[in-house]
Amino acid sequence: MIIKAVIGVLCAAVVLAIGIVIGHFGINNSSAPSWLNDVAKDVDESLIEKFLAEVDTIHIQENLRELTDVPHMATTPGDEKTVQTMLRRWQDADTGLDDAWREEYNVYLSFPDPNNPNKVTVVDAANTVQHSIREREKAYTSDQDDPEVVQPYAAYSPAGHAKGKLVYANQGKPSDYEQLSQTLNLTGTIAITRYGGAGRGAKAINAAPYGVVGVLVYTDPLDINDGLMSDTNETYPHSWYMPPSGVERGSFNRDFGDLLTPYLAAKEETYRIPPENIVGIPPIPIQPIGFEDAYILICALGGDAAPSEWQGAFNCTYNYGGPGFKPTSEFNNSDVKMDIYNKEVIKNSANVMGVIRGSVEPDRYVIYGNHRDSWVHGAIDPSSGTSVMLEITRVLGRMVKQGIWRPRRSIIFGSWGAEEFGLIGSAEYTEQYFAKLSERTIAYINVDIAVFANATLRASAMPSLQNVIFKASKEVNAPGESSTSVYEAWKLHSNRTSPTHGVIPRLGYLTGAGSDYAAFVHYLGISSIDMSYTYDRSKTNARIYPAYHTAYDTFDYASKYIDPGFVSHQAVARTAGNILIRLADSLLLPFNCSDYAEILEDYLNTAVTLYQQQLEAHKISIEPLKRAVAMFRTNAQQLEKMIHNSDLANETPLKVRRINDQLMLLDRAFLDPLAFPDKYAFRHVIWTSSSAGKATFPGLADAFAQAESSGLDSDWDKVHYHLSVVSQAIEGAASTLADVI
Amino acid sequence: MIIKAVIGVLCAAVVLAIGIVIGHFGINNSSAPSWLNDVAKDVDESLIEKFLAEVDTIHIQENLRELTDVPHMATTPGDEKTVQTMLRRWQDADTGLDDAWREEYNVYLSFPDPNNPNKVTVVDAANTVQHSIREREKAYTSDQDDPEVVQPYAAYSPAGHAKGKLVYANQGKPSDYEQLSQTLNLTGTIAITRYGGAGRGAKAINAAPYGVVGVLVYTDPLDINDGLMSDTNETYPHSWYMPPSGVERGSFNRDFGDLLTPYLAAKEETYRIPPENIVGIPPIPIQPIGFEDAYILICALGGDAAPSEWQGAFNCTYNYGGPGFKPTSEFNNSDVKMDIYNKEVIKNSANVMGVIRGSVEPDRYVIYGNHRDSWVHGAIDPSSGTSVMLEITRVLGRMVKQGIWRPRRSIIFGSWGAEEFGLIGSAEYTEQYFAKLSERTIAYINVDIAVFANATLRASAMPSLQNVIFKASKEVNAPGESSTSVYEAWKLHSNRTSPTHGVIPRLGYLTGAGSDYAAFVHYLGISSIDMSYTYDRSKTNARIYPAYHTAYDTFDYASKYIDPGFVSHQAVARTAGNILIRLADSLLLPFNCSDYAEILEDYLNTAVTLYQQQLEAHKISIEPLKRAVAMFRTNAQQLEKMIHNSDLANETPLKVRRINDQLMLLDRAFLDPLAFPDKYAFRHVIWTSSSAGKATFPGLADAFAQAESSGLDSDWDKVHYHLSVVSQAIEGAASTLADVI
Repeated sequence: MIIKAVIGVLCAAVVLAIGIVIGHFGINNSSAPSWLNDVAKDVDESLIEKFLAEVDTIHIQENLRELTDVPHMATTPGDEKTVQTMLRRWQDADTGLDDAWREEYNVYLSFPDPNNPNKVTVVDAANTVQHSIREREKAYTSDQDDPEVVQPYAAYSPAGHAKGKLVYANQGKPSDYEQLSQTLNLTGTIAITRYGGAGRGAKAINAAPYGVVGVLVYTDPLDINDGLMSDTNETYPHSWYMPPSGVERGSFNRDFGDLLTPYLAAKEETYRIPPENIVGIPPIPIQPIGFEDAYILICALGGDAAPSEWQGAFNCTYNYGGPGFKPTSEFNNSDVKMDIYNKEVIKNSANVMGVIRGSVEPDRYVIYGNHRDSWVHGAIDPSSGTSVMLEITRVLGRMVKQGIWRPRRSIIFGSWGAEEFGLIGSAEYTEQYFAKLSERTIAYINVDIAVFANATLRASAMPSLQNVIFKASKEVNAPGESSTSVYEAWKLHSNRTSPTHGVIPRLGYLTGAGSDYAAFVHYLGISSIDMSYTYDRSKTNARIYPAYHTAYDTFDYASKYIDPGFVSHQAVARTAGNILIRLADSLLLPFNCSDYAEILEDYLNTAVTLYQQQLEAHKISIEPLKRAVAMFRTNAQQLEKMIHNSDLANETPLKVRRINDQLMLLDRAFLDPLAFPDKYAFRHVIWTSSSAGKATFPGLADAFAQAESSGLDSDWDKVHYHLSVVSQAIEGAASTLADVI
Repeated sequence: MIIKAVIGVLCAAVVLAIGIVIGHFGINNSSAPSWLNDVAKDVDESLIEKFLAEVDTIHIQENLRELTDVPHMATTPGDEKTVQTMLRRWQDADTGLDDAWREEYNVYLSFPDPNNPNKVTVVDAANTVQHSIREREKAYTSDQDDPEVVQPYAAYSPAGHAKGKLVYANQGKPSDYEQLSQTLNLTGTIAITRYGGAGRGAKAINAAPYGVVGVLVYTDPLDINDGLMSDTNETYPHSWYMPPSGVERGSFNRDFGDLLTPYLAAKEETYRIPPENIVGIPPIPIQPIGFEDAYILICALGGDAAPSEWQGAFNCTYNYGGPGFKPTSEFNNSDVKMDIYNKEVIKNSANVMGVIRGSVEPDRYVIYGNHRDSWVHGAIDPSSGTSVMLEITRVLGRMVKQGIWRPRRSIIFGSWGAEEFGLIGSAEYTEQYFAKLSERTIAYINVDIAVFANATLRASAMPSLQNVIFKASKEVNAPGESSTSVYEAWKLHSNRTSPTHGVIPRLGYLTGAGSDYAAFVHYLGISSIDMSYTYDRSKTNARIYPAYHTAYDTFDYASKYIDPGFVSHQAVARTAGNILIRLADSLLLPFNCSDYAEILEDYLNTAVTLYQQQLEAHKISIEPLKRAVAMFRTNAQQLEKMIHNSDLANETPLKVRRINDQLMLLDRAFLDPLAFPDKYAFRHVIWTSSSAGKATFPGLADAFAQAESSGLDSDWDKVHYHLSVVSQAIEGAASTLADVI
């Protein structure tokens, strides 16, 4: 009986236990919802390893081959072909994205007239042509013979006919024309300038006030070919150097975005300003030429010898010009004549957009983009970047289609149109979706030219992103290396000593508008990254890779001279993709605001060193700026301490979201839409462009330079104004990092 | 045996069941975190009932008594006393908030000189004074005798001495001076104008181009006292009407915020523009006077009779002026002389801030505010609102201190300083915390003058808030009523027929800058509400309550004539507090974007009716605007359908947060910081101020009026520009309502 009772109790205990187990695990507990694990999920390191392993050089190479099949200048049939390529890839059932579509804008472009090419000639007094500048680059392969290769020209140069004596104006900087005008009367002259030192259009804008009637621009072999200039054995196809007839094309406008629709997306019925109201474009004709012709013109110039800083690599003395050619030259008394037939036209340009929808926070976007349009075949610019983007989307798309991955946040890919004409596709996109993108975008990653050269990573970004860039670059092998990381190679080539981190790679700043990050950084205030593989600067003086914007930027050039084996492309794809996955998947955004504080302190120290004494002399206190930066540092530290003390995976998802919003929106707090009225769409008071050339707050630096130069009270007032603007912005940003109110 | 077996099975079943129960409910399920209920919690209706029950007329009355104890013009000792009152209340251990503090700004104010009062006199050719305008209002109670009662003056009128022949310029509108100048040469004259029709400062700004050297302004009994003007039996203290010596003070600046620090918070070291660069202030002296004196001056005027629309309530004909007085008057040939000694000074003004920290989403703010400063005792303006705010914070604070309530979101209370000088405290606050407030604020509720009169609720708001205002007002009894709700009484007094809702109360729009909502609506784009109890317009023509900005706006006046028993104050406190709790506690924000769509459609219909024909004649298509509004409607409906089909309490909290962010940020999408360069801090393209007087898109309406008047192509271009601006803004807003990308 006792045994029976014991057995009974034991049985009952077993049954009870079974009941408890069933009750605990078997019944859907209404207080333990199914989404609980999803919202707490962090980045999956094994998935990143899988991604890195799958990024493949052959795919990148074949992407590049397809993209560079024909010239694809914006809005040409070749451009439409690449639109179709992008759509087909991104809509692929096995390796595509969730969705892909095109978005179109009607944008203001400028082209030469194929039926009436631009001409530059040397003519004598009877208008007899003594020399004609080459109208097309010399063809070394069939690529360059394609009839779709656009004649070298200066987009947005006005059409017109100019004739005058030639002068040499160095780089066409204001100081160059100023100096030249002290020797010569420039009225009625044509100025020849070399690339570099000033913006393309600026070379004409700076010239016009002196009465110059036309400008030529060329690439001096000193600045691009390390001095070499023979096409028989030195330049492409024998090396990466620009052949003598090579010409850098380009857009010669100052502002980015469609020029007729400032701050408005360029839709069909959108208001357009009258073209005569466009600012920042050349007021006089300008035309780029090859150094083969520039050599003939410059070495024939009369007048005094230009100073040594003006001398290039030609084997002659660069004279100012008499104005005009020297008496001993065959061109004695001749003029240079420019006949420019550029036409402005409103054309339909497409962005191609693709998206992977986020699972947990679909309303948070990580955007990755590059432009699609080139000047000619654009193997390096931009197709190296597009090839990388397509390889990233192939690998990620396949993981999505296989159901093994879906990012926490949404990822948007943008293949921008008409970048070469002034970042137009990306700018119009930010104008059309201003509110949505401002509110929801975590970060923008731009990979335009993915590989300039094979030596080292180059990355520019907001400082808050330094850490994730470092982390990703440590996990990727340097091209062709098995034990050195991208990070190590980078640190070797370019480094700085951080007060916090010691010796680290030098991250650049996004202070300009060199690619499609511009609208994201400056107009929207979105934390952005621009990256590529690039040169060992100890080995070349080239301003940029020598085939840039020429007809020689082809698949052959890229695969032979820029990245044989596509290993640098692969390294960039791996690094950028790694960053992208971390931004999209990390529970806590991988942003570090103390790294931002370090750069603000660095800027502050520079400002104190350079300006404090003179500011005090003008009764302007720099103390508010010091207080603002100190407050930013304190609040950044407190936020990080709070994060450190939190168990984010187990707290309410709204707490993580709150912190992530603080991190995401940090750069937005630096925007001031009224601080720089003369700089189109520049609103970020820390990173806006500056002409003062100081590594400090740009508005302050420019205003200070102006005030120091003019000495006017009203200019010192502007210094004070910019000091207040930047102090308030930093304090405002700091307050967003503080505890919630 | 069978029975035993059955019993055994039954016992086992019972034990199993017990086990299941224990397992299910008795063991803390590790996958069911403690915060799960908190994040899904919705507004507690019983708590709202408790709140409504506790709002008490006696407390409001005693708040008002304390706040109006002494005059408390901005930055005076009386103002500091109210700062201390607010801090003491909000820091109270039993009924206070979580935290309260003061925030200070150094702001540009304008005061008369107590040692050298402004004088207006009638002088003869020998400069002998024939009549002196009263310098202080007549005292009927000891309140008005307080030496701290500021002399009536026009803040921001320049100091100066003006002398000239008097003319009558009606309301000082541009058309008034235009008309007057067709009869008279206005050079060197002094113009007397009545309040109404044009902004205060505008009466002087409009006058100056005609050579007018000084302006007087008074309140005509027609416009405020329903014609009554005797202090022996008709006006206060016998009724609510303004006594003959009563003078409406005011600020005479056009723009809001500190005038020296546009877009910058006015801290000690902030950059200040030179005072001579201030725009929108009177260029010539202006001084307000009582109708007692105005009567003497106007009835003595010579010249032709002014038109009937210019005639007021005086028992004489309002003549234009000869210029000057009529020959039969004792003032024949006399001048009016103005000696204005106003001084501008930078003074320290405080906002008092208080906060209840949110439990679940502390980084979402509902802001409730009112200004604290008055012109004199300010019983109605603003202390009626402050009394209401203090009663709301007392009831809510007590619930917090007792631990029975903590809102889901944070609530911020603002007691703004220096509103009377141009909404300065609230504007500086929005400038200092621009980024944080833009990113996190759900809504702003403004209750300035809580009670103008006892007849009906008046509320103006963004249309998305209509529904929560209606809901709250249905739950509150109309003052002194037990069966009629505030909503019903409101609908009776002022209604419209909505295509969706049928007959509903008429909600106003926040198109102006009449109180501290201005910076929140126009500068930050935050969905806002401004509300009060107000008149039965069928019973009075008064522009506003007659003691407005006079020395008669006292506790005695308020409690006797405006709201005996404080029942309207109570109704406003209950309604506003109800709205506040719903905004702070609702799981899903009580915003309705279809109601926004309805108003946009209404605006569109008006625009089509008024403008389409002429737009087409000028080759401007209105189609983009139609498409944008249609897209807004479609996306609003889809969002609401998605909400309707969701079980928000059981889905991831991030989904609710996503929808709430869409709702919260909707108004932000309408901001354009560059669309209205001539209107300080006006950025909201739907609600910005307009002079065209049409219930449609303001930028379009104003541009159209200008183009229609001038006929210039460049003005039609501006019409097209504004059409594009508003179309893009609405489309941008619509896209934020769409599915996530």
